[in-house]
Amino acid sequence: MKGQSTHDHEKKASALSAVSLVRDGMIVGIGTGSTAAFAISELGRLVADGLDITGIPTSYQSEILAAQQKIPLTTLLEHPEIDIALDGADQIDKNLVAIKGGGAAHAKEKVIASAASIVVLMVGEAKVVPLLDHAVPIEVLPYAVTLVEREVRALGGVPNLRMAVHKDGPVVTDNGNFVIDSDFGTIDDPRRLNDEIDAIVGAVEHGIFLNVDEVHIGGTDWVRVLTRRE
Amino acid sequence: MKGQSTHDHEKKASALSAVSLVRDGMIVGIGTGSTAAFAISELGRLVADGLDITGIPTSYQSEILAAQQKIPLTTLLEHPEIDIALDGADQIDKNLVAIKGGGAAHAKEKVIASAASIVVLMVGEAKVVPLLDHAVPIEVLPYAVTLVEREVRALGGVPNLRMAVHKDGPVVTDNGNFVIDSDFGTIDDPRRLNDEIDAIVGAVEHGIFLNVDEVHIGGTDWVRVLTRRE
Repeated sequence: MKGQSTHDHEKKASALSAVSLVRDGMIVGIGTGSTAAFAISELGRLVADGLDITGIPTSYQSEILAAQQKIPLTTLLEHPEIDIALDGADQIDKNLVAIKGGGAAHAKEKVIASAASIVVLMVGEAKVVPLLDHAVPIEVLPYAVTLVEREVRALGGVPNLRMAVHKDGPVVTDNGNFVIDSDFGTIDDPRRLNDEIDAIVGAVEHGIFLNVDEVHIGGTDWVRVLTRRE
Repeated sequence: MKGQSTHDHEKKASALSAVSLVRDGMIVGIGTGSTAAFAISELGRLVADGLDITGIPTSYQSEILAAQQKIPLTTLLEHPEIDIALDGADQIDKNLVAIKGGGAAHAKEKVIASAASIVVLMVGEAKVVPLLDHAVPIEVLPYAVTLVEREVRALGGVPNLRMAVHKDGPVVTDNGNFVIDSDFGTIDDPRRLNDEIDAIVGAVEHGIFLNVDEVHIGGTDWVRVLTRRE
């Protein structure tokens, strides 16, 4: 079993590799989570060295970290077109379909990814699997919890309302909603599941990402890159 | 052209007809808007006379009106199964596909409708059309406005961010989101459009309702009822 420092090493390696794609003048979608935090640190270092970019954060977490790094920030309202989105993932398969949302930021992450010309994910080797089986986080309108749980069960899933640790009761997302982690076991057809969850009333956004262009996978002493085959 | 009082007469006639379906012991989804307000008044009168129902409101508006009428209220968390949902609509076709959301309450209305055994809409005759052509209200995460507008245009629609009157800037829904009224002209295939809007990232819920069971249509001196053919 790998120690935390090995995991951190892999995350950082993948982040540095992905950040090398960023060029002067780019609008950059700035992801959320521990791997994205490495990317934000590196972007901050490059900006201090003169790199001219503008970031659009995917969460309060990434906004706070990017502001600390003095990365100039903007919004999708001002800049609806993003050149590159950099983000982490909870799990990804070899077709570059990912599951995200462990940090409950997947709604804005998905909006940013959809607005981006290129979506690049950064993960450690352990996140890459032949078949996705991570629970799918579904952000839901708070009053729709019981309804969405019913629909998840109807699709063969097991719904779990995500509970907070440093507040009582459920996690509340940056959008003011709840998250239902929905375990579908091994997901044979993630595109079909994507469409089925899209159709659930009361579901705001879910963690299946279909539009990933490239993934940088960090290992102990290497980084490998998977690119979408068109 | 009909005067306001004629419209009110038609709305009230449809509301009284629909309310006649409510029975003792039912959990009742309570709709939003001017026609639903007539239904709430009538339900209040019946409750005062001893009718034993519990309501689940679809908006702050209907919650306030129902509370004024002393209708006992509950939530979908406590009662995930609703016996009958009563609501208005902006437009409805002869296949009982409706467009709702003029009052910006369509997300919760849709959640309530999805949880209901029977969905009954109440409209005046003018709302019934051969082909839907009303703009489709799409509730969106505020930061996703530019992205959703782009997607609406890609589907051939004309997006208009709905502006508020008694506050500056956009309307903010009961869920804290914005509304983009999206004009697709005449909608030849509302089921396909439903699926296409469901797939837009950043869209929380839209105003196309496919699961209407019955519509009560108020005219000058009659009410006619359309029921879904199974």
